[in-house]
Amino acid sequence: MEAKIELIPSGTVTSPRGFHAGATYAGINKKAKHGLDLGILFSEVPCATAALFTTNRIKAAPVVLCQQRLRGEKAAALVVNSGCANACTGEQGLVDAAEMADLAARGIGISPEEILVASTGVIGQLLPMKQIQAGIEQIVLSAEGGHDLAKAIMTTDTVPKETAVVVRVDDSEFTIGGVAKGAGMIHPTLATMLCFLTTDAAVDIGFLRLSLKKAVDTSFNMVSIDGDSSPNDTVLIMANGQAENEVIKQDTKQADAFQRALDQVCIHLAKSIARDGEGANKLIEVTVSGAISVAEARLAARTVVSSPLVKAAVHGNDPNWGRIIAAVGRSGTEVVESKIDLYIGDICLVEAGSPLSFDKKHVVEVLSRSEVPIKVQLNLGTATATAWGCDLTEEYVTINSQYTT
Amino acid sequence: MEAKIELIPSGTVTSPRGFHAGATYAGINKKAKHGLDLGILFSEVPCATAALFTTNRIKAAPVVLCQQRLRGEKAAALVVNSGCANACTGEQGLVDAAEMADLAARGIGISPEEILVASTGVIGQLLPMKQIQAGIEQIVLSAEGGHDLAKAIMTTDTVPKETAVVVRVDDSEFTIGGVAKGAGMIHPTLATMLCFLTTDAAVDIGFLRLSLKKAVDTSFNMVSIDGDSSPNDTVLIMANGQAENEVIKQDTKQADAFQRALDQVCIHLAKSIARDGEGANKLIEVTVSGAISVAEARLAARTVVSSPLVKAAVHGNDPNWGRIIAAVGRSGTEVVESKIDLYIGDICLVEAGSPLSFDKKHVVEVLSRSEVPIKVQLNLGTATATAWGCDLTEEYVTINSQYTT
Repeated sequence: MEAKIELIPSGTVTSPRGFHAGATYAGINKKAKHGLDLGILFSEVPCATAALFTTNRIKAAPVVLCQQRLRGEKAAALVVNSGCANACTGEQGLVDAAEMADLAARGIGISPEEILVASTGVIGQLLPMKQIQAGIEQIVLSAEGGHDLAKAIMTTDTVPKETAVVVRVDDSEFTIGGVAKGAGMIHPTLATMLCFLTTDAAVDIGFLRLSLKKAVDTSFNMVSIDGDSSPNDTVLIMANGQAENEVIKQDTKQADAFQRALDQVCIHLAKSIARDGEGANKLIEVTVSGAISVAEARLAARTVVSSPLVKAAVHGNDPNWGRIIAAVGRSGTEVVESKIDLYIGDICLVEAGSPLSFDKKHVVEVLSRSEVPIKVQLNLGTATATAWGCDLTEEYVTINSQYTT
Repeated sequence: MEAKIELIPSGTVTSPRGFHAGATYAGINKKAKHGLDLGILFSEVPCATAALFTTNRIKAAPVVLCQQRLRGEKAAALVVNSGCANACTGEQGLVDAAEMADLAARGIGISPEEILVASTGVIGQLLPMKQIQAGIEQIVLSAEGGHDLAKAIMTTDTVPKETAVVVRVDDSEFTIGGVAKGAGMIHPTLATMLCFLTTDAAVDIGFLRLSLKKAVDTSFNMVSIDGDSSPNDTVLIMANGQAENEVIKQDTKQADAFQRALDQVCIHLAKSIARDGEGANKLIEVTVSGAISVAEARLAARTVVSSPLVKAAVHGNDPNWGRIIAAVGRSGTEVVESKIDLYIGDICLVEAGSPLSFDKKHVVEVLSRSEVPIKVQLNLGTATATAWGCDLTEEYVTINSQYTT
């Protein structure tokens, strides 16, 4: 029997069995859009936990703490705040991150080693520990609390980002859920990307790590250039085994279903992040095909979707396809100009490297849609990759000129 | 006797002896700001000529043509237009570039192999050859024509960029002049960078090439990320020997004076380009010191000056120094967070990795100036580099949403 993956309506990070969450307003994020800036995610039993962190050489205190704690492979909870990144805060930052974790662990009644911590917001300011302490005492956990957690981690995000799917494969059934935050111009961005994933499946820790890496590579890493990350970026997945399935191991039918479901959850959240780039009006989807390797296809797709000139042209409904070709050219990907085909929507603008005459009105209409697909066929090999981004608007600049002031 | 380098008031590309230039309006660049879009630069005698071209894998037709012609090492003239890049134009583009060169060579009365060609403007459109033919016939060359040439190459530039210096070393005296165009957000930009340099010095071609590469590395390559270039980028220098000095060869006092003068001319033009970034109000100068190598210092300085978040913060006079540190961190440059000092102007905001309390009003005042110096001391080694850029404004987006439409 083929595995089935179904979207759960209004699914979130607490959709999988045994996960609870809650959030409150602690007064850390003065611009908290839904009146929430501090949250906790909690599993009834300790979870196999895998995580990926920022590649920035400057790592925020909560990232340093998580990296230490995850050597134990198990975690039962997470405490997270928006409004202050606790990055570039020296020794005191590390003390505060540990203290924030301790306060939350005590509140929930677990051991301090079992809790992880994350922060997002302004860099270079110390956490207001009194407010955090008072805030943690206010938080009430519930099985519907995922929605509040999604809101509490927002900074310049305009909408909360959450989803969940249920997977049925042979006689087992498990759920994967997640919340994320992003915004920033996506690339080149320093806006923190946070993503917390949960599953009630029992998953082998080795496979869980591989699976997370794979899912992140085709999702979040295709909205932001690798290595171009904020000090706080964190993606983690907690698997608590409450689905009572046989432990999922690599190279099984169950592993395959788990991977596809995790990919779907991550791509959903990644596209939500891209669509919600600061000041953005549109989602841009760039697919590069016919590359000589997946790595080259990825590089070209990401370079196009990250080009400020392409992003500004899409914003202005300007069929300036030369900027797309030029971005492919400077990406470093192997290209032969006379072989490139280029499409906006289904309209071919360039064939075998030569401009075709096209109905400008029609292209402008495609560019005016809320999702703009751009396709580049290199006709050199068989590798394909897709990247997502958003248009670049005047509002992006306004938002980012006034962040701390 | 120490060599003396003096700025020539109103100096330009025709300041060196034996160079003439002229420009006209051919109707190629509908938005030509000074009513000029086609120009010619001419030397009375053939010149030792060195050039550097775009690293983009998509190369415009004029670049391909110049690369072929420069195998001969000599050139006597250059014809250039704005408004149309003649890039992504296939076979016809190459035919047109050669034809444009032929028309100009015939007009001046030199052989077609002695002329170079450059274009800047919209990608993917064919050159309007009739207008170019008619335009070339209009051009009148003169020793003051450099000023018009500087105007004819402008696209979204708001001011022409030109300069010249005179160098006295022992009993020889020679002049170096140049014009340039840039704009675009500088990085990450596809706005074409063109720079045409001239000198009446007699210069050995081997040294001329080395010298140009060195000057470009500390100037133009410090306003735009290496490899991140438009299909048309061109920097060239023509040396006609009219100063009748002894031919300048590597590792001599004369070579040293020539290098310093060429660096000065290129840095002047590079800073003019940075200051005139699309929509920009300010020049940002980022100096990274104490790096373990010059390559690392360059990388960090360029990453900071290219960060949209740093650029937007400077635009908003926002002392959000965390973005500067985070950009250094993601640059890949070796850093130890607890050793970093950071200054805006002369105000130290971070010492040994820890935030200092600072007078916000004072920092805002520095950020409000037309030139904003940012200094990062890594305290790891002795290497230093400086990069230039501009602030990011709402106007940048507006300009780039409406370029072809």
